[in-house]
Amino acid sequence: MKLKRSGRLVDMTRYLMEHPNTIVSLTEFSERYESAKSSISEDLAIIKESFEAQGVGKLVTLPGATGGVKYIPYIKKKAAESFLTSLGQMLSSQERLLAGGYLFMTDILGDPFIIKEIGRLIASVYIHNDIDVVMTMETKGIPIAYAAASQLNVPVVIARRSSKVTEGSTVSINYVSGSSKRIQSMVLPRRSLSKGSRVLIVDDFMKAGGTIKGMMHLVAEFECLTVGIAVLVETGGESPKLVDRYLSLLKLGQIKEGTAVPIEIGNYFNYFREE
Amino acid sequence: MKLKRSGRLVDMTRYLMEHPNTIVSLTEFSERYESAKSSISEDLAIIKESFEAQGVGKLVTLPGATGGVKYIPYIKKKAAESFLTSLGQMLSSQERLLAGGYLFMTDILGDPFIIKEIGRLIASVYIHNDIDVVMTMETKGIPIAYAAASQLNVPVVIARRSSKVTEGSTVSINYVSGSSKRIQSMVLPRRSLSKGSRVLIVDDFMKAGGTIKGMMHLVAEFECLTVGIAVLVETGGESPKLVDRYLSLLKLGQIKEGTAVPIEIGNYFNYFREE
Repeated sequence: MKLKRSGRLVDMTRYLMEHPNTIVSLTEFSERYESAKSSISEDLAIIKESFEAQGVGKLVTLPGATGGVKYIPYIKKKAAESFLTSLGQMLSSQERLLAGGYLFMTDILGDPFIIKEIGRLIASVYIHNDIDVVMTMETKGIPIAYAAASQLNVPVVIARRSSKVTEGSTVSINYVSGSSKRIQSMVLPRRSLSKGSRVLIVDDFMKAGGTIKGMMHLVAEFECLTVGIAVLVETGGESPKLVDRYLSLLKLGQIKEGTAVPIEIGNYFNYFREE
Repeated sequence: MKLKRSGRLVDMTRYLMEHPNTIVSLTEFSERYESAKSSISEDLAIIKESFEAQGVGKLVTLPGATGGVKYIPYIKKKAAESFLTSLGQMLSSQERLLAGGYLFMTDILGDPFIIKEIGRLIASVYIHNDIDVVMTMETKGIPIAYAAASQLNVPVVIARRSSKVTEGSTVSINYVSGSSKRIQSMVLPRRSLSKGSRVLIVDDFMKAGGTIKGMMHLVAEFECLTVGIAVLVETGGESPKLVDRYLSLLKLGQIKEGTAVPIEIGNYFNYFREE
């Protein structure tokens, strides 16, 4: 289709946003809009400027004969801080306290807009780590895993507590739950990870880290590499953690009856690097 | 921020795409860009034209003093057909056949790009049905539910097989699995659905429909209304279904050893209405 600049800008913005972390060649855009590459380059400069001014992402131009452009989602430090602060406030309501030191987060994890932002924060940290796949354990980590994966443009694999007929053959491991010290098992379909994949592990909540440790074992079992670990909420109480290096968006402190839930920003900004 | 038209077009496109099915007032845009409402209206006309030409959605203008604009995602019939045809082809590989008449779909359900399209197809059908919440049953329906919900701009609630400490108090029902005739249970956190909500039920796979029927009971238990039911794949073999009206994207026929998996487009186009 032949389009004027204004029409091209709208369509290219949409296209790039729907294909994050993907190289689009200038030739592809040039043919799509029946426009000279020089015009396309000017369009991209305008989009780049807007994205960077808004702090929603970068456009990286790849040089060479096969030159192209890649939309890299990221978030600005200030926006990340303000999002985490308001998320922390939402979670600090006393009514959210449940037995066993857990927090009721189901409503927040059910909000696609919040989930998308959480995914964007996680993806912003790991975007340059050549992640091949995002892994999580059923159930609550799943939406977070998809939100991060869609920004990173990689697939999701889901570990489950027991093997299902719909998964085909599976690989199973046993692990010790860090908090309850019980032996549990975790399975992953044999077809789901190829050898050598670089894996980002994501989960909603981490106490001692037994489940995460289990996932790391499973990753190793498939001869893959755990490149990063990101959790939405870690608890501050349990120590020591079974996992050394992990990113947490929020940290839940020691709970006292009758006071607000003590939530603070986790170690996120130790990993975050402003672009 | 003061922006030229080109910069406004990029930013408005991004903003609208990130806020589907949400009214944005012209005043909001006008203040955001320090531009006259007449200029904003012209920008919106350009975006509308591009979205409609590409078949990615509509911009609906709401008149009146508080006038605004709403981005309504939809898909064109031709694009929906071509997506479902290629998805069907992917699923028809013999290697996907599992015991019990199930299909291995884990890899496809792990692809965020495919999941997003599935969500867009479902949302396109129910966008005018005033859905308040999308409901699914753990585990495989979850990504589809989020993909549809994010386009509809509503939350997701997830029914589980057993109650978890992290969910607070729950409502539980028993239901008879349509295929295995076993009694199973299904729980939903008490806080997750408010009375009178209009619910869209979504799942990945439907054989006889027992699980869907269970979810409908749960919806009724919360004094809510099931407005629609959408599944990715239904099986053609089992009859009759326990559920009367449902939308299916794909239909799995009778499987014969040594032949390709018989997959066809489901009843989707009985529900789909070209905008």
